Amino acid sequence: MKLSKRVLDMQESPVRKLVPIATRVKKQGKKVYHLNIGQPDIPTPKVFIEAINNYDTSVIKYSFSQGEPVLINAIRDYFERDNIHFDEDEILITNGGSEALTFTTISICDPGDEILVPEPFYTNYNGFTGGVNVSIKPITTKAEEGFHLPSKEEITKLITPKTKAILFSNPGNPTGTILTLKEMEMLADIALENDLYIISDEVYRGFAFDGLKGISMGSIKRVQDRTILIESVSKRYSACGARIGSIASKNKVLIKNILKLCQARLCVATLEQVGAAALYQLPDSYTDEIRKEYQARRDIVYKTLQEIPGVVCEKPTGAFYVVVQLPVDDAEEFVIWMLEEFELDGETIMLSPAEGFYATPGLGKNEVRIAYVLNTDTMAHAMNILKEGLKAYKK
Amino acid sequence: MKLSKRVLDMQESPVRKLVPIATRVKKQGKKVYHLNIGQPDIPTPKVFIEAINNYDTSVIKYSFSQGEPVLINAIRDYFERDNIHFDEDEILITNGGSEALTFTTISICDPGDEILVPEPFYTNYNGFTGGVNVSIKPITTKAEEGFHLPSKEEITKLITPKTKAILFSNPGNPTGTILTLKEMEMLADIALENDLYIISDEVYRGFAFDGLKGISMGSIKRVQDRTILIESVSKRYSACGARIGSIASKNKVLIKNILKLCQARLCVATLEQVGAAALYQLPDSYTDEIRKEYQARRDIVYKTLQEIPGVVCEKPTGAFYVVVQLPVDDAEEFVIWMLEEFELDGETIMLSPAEGFYATPGLGKNEVRIAYVLNTDTMAHAMNILKEGLKAYKK
Repeated sequence: MKLSKRVLDMQESPVRKLVPIATRVKKQGKKVYHLNIGQPDIPTPKVFIEAINNYDTSVIKYSFSQGEPVLINAIRDYFERDNIHFDEDEILITNGGSEALTFTTISICDPGDEILVPEPFYTNYNGFTGGVNVSIKPITTKAEEGFHLPSKEEITKLITPKTKAILFSNPGNPTGTILTLKEMEMLADIALENDLYIISDEVYRGFAFDGLKGISMGSIKRVQDRTILIESVSKRYSACGARIGSIASKNKVLIKNILKLCQARLCVATLEQVGAAALYQLPDSYTDEIRKEYQARRDIVYKTLQEIPGVVCEKPTGAFYVVVQLPVDDAEEFVIWMLEEFELDGETIMLSPAEGFYATPGLGKNEVRIAYVLNTDTMAHAMNILKEGLKAYKK
Repeated sequence: MKLSKRVLDMQESPVRKLVPIATRVKKQGKKVYHLNIGQPDIPTPKVFIEAINNYDTSVIKYSFSQGEPVLINAIRDYFERDNIHFDEDEILITNGGSEALTFTTISICDPGDEILVPEPFYTNYNGFTGGVNVSIKPITTKAEEGFHLPSKEEITKLITPKTKAILFSNPGNPTGTILTLKEMEMLADIALENDLYIISDEVYRGFAFDGLKGISMGSIKRVQDRTILIESVSKRYSACGARIGSIASKNKVLIKNILKLCQARLCVATLEQVGAAALYQLPDSYTDEIRKEYQARRDIVYKTLQEIPGVVCEKPTGAFYVVVQLPVDDAEEFVIWMLEEFELDGETIMLSPAEGFYATPGLGKNEVRIAYVLNTDTMAHAMNILKEGLKAYKK
């Protein structure tokens, strides 16, 4: 009665594995500020629950396997604002961006195939690929270069006959880096020259600061038949628990085949789709306001980081994360120490050790990811705890 | 830019592929009674939406990867009523029974492995296995034997070194057959002797007629470490669109490993879990009433079937389906003919051709599945349309 090799090879979530320690110290009375997980404190817009309450709930029926038409059309409109046109049969609704990525991986890769991913990357990419026997081949990026991509030659060197796609999140989780248009064009060239799909995880699009625009990969027309856009309401509308994501691609044959996987699991939760449609229908002013809030948080985080000796990081320009090198040997040890040993007036912070965001062994050992998901005052307070904590740790 | 072999090998849902024909004739003004899909007409208990409305929806946060404690505990209580005890860390909440089955398959099978399944079987089992490179090896059962299992010897003959589990739905979709305790004990013996897991899909448990009890495989203690129970609120509480399922097993190591897959996709929709907890807390009287209603429907269906010459079926005793042999050569042709060519006062019915429920080529060609998901009067009316349709078709 064995377990499968593929599940045994999967690692426990590095973001979640320290949770029991945090739970324990909180029970002991310590207050912990969670900068370790991308759960924003922003209220979910009321239209979400209002739409659910206005829906006929007498029989909670199956939705369509491809998704509720009202939500599909709301997502079409969302892209249309950026002059990206999708037909109704080019969008599929999924159980979060997670299922979108798993279904895409299954549909373009067979066991043994590879996907290129810039590292550090969203650690759950390991689950979406490893669980279905696909390997991630990392493209290493560095803190001191602001986690921007290496040269075309360096990336091309990593491609083998087994490589089927390039996958990246843009704006980047965990890095907070936004790809330049030049980088996006380079990825398009690489995909065209090597016959690869492009999987563009855009769940943080809109979180772009300093006047930058979060450009969708869907804007690059010459690769639109090989581009798959991954979306989600989780971050943009602070509705992480709704689990509504989507897949969009101009490649109708691909969508038709991914639909088979959607049909097997019947549908995504009906009510959540109705609520999500109302979110996508919110005016741009909603996103503008949220962006301002996150930019203010980012400014506070970056300012404090600059004040701490030995910290290495470029100013992040998107999403709500930053990966920083700390003046410590082992960031995980430091994170645990902050939880167990340190406190400032009975309070401490929890960070994510960044090693789990890398596929290359040994990288990221002295790095952490900071999620700035708390309001500006609280973030300033939490960052001060980090500063004082580092001071005490060095002694 | 190829698609994967595994997705190309998947078939479109046979239940859903005739939908466009139905849509067309409905647009032309014909009324179609849907006996082809397991979408009950029973109202979802109001406690579902009430629980959601009473929940704090200011920020729709991530739930726990293993599921909301309130729901896990409600499911524990549900099993406890049958003296089946689960600890809190032996239950995982999933996106419907669908995800429960996919995650279980990934966790116990590597690519190339096999699972034994009595046929005809729920057609989406093909998707949950094929999408992750696992094969179904069918154990053929027959209409004239009420779809009961063949002998232990016949089943054991099908086992190879690649066989990892036996999977079945009990009460059975599409057959409506309930396994006898003797059959369950036989499956337990086979699993023990051949070191297999038992995946018991019990989403129709409670739909057991004629005084039969829907016995859970969880009652058979000697195989509890190798048994995985699959549950869902979809049918029992008429909440198909809620997409809440679960995995329960006394095998903690297995659960711990499936949890890795749960962590990768973060969580199941928070609000739906809160609603589902209220459903599982309903008293047994709720299920009793629903069972009576379905038994009355079953009686009407079976009575009409007995009146039609050339029809072969045993009286179904569970779920809300029956597979019947019709006096036709090609049941799919007949189903399409009923939609396109036949009408009785402007009305017709839609059935599911059963061929798609078999893995063995050629089987089920003259069979259909009838879902009795409409109230008794409507079912009587719809069955009369079938009777008249068959008469006309034979001419």
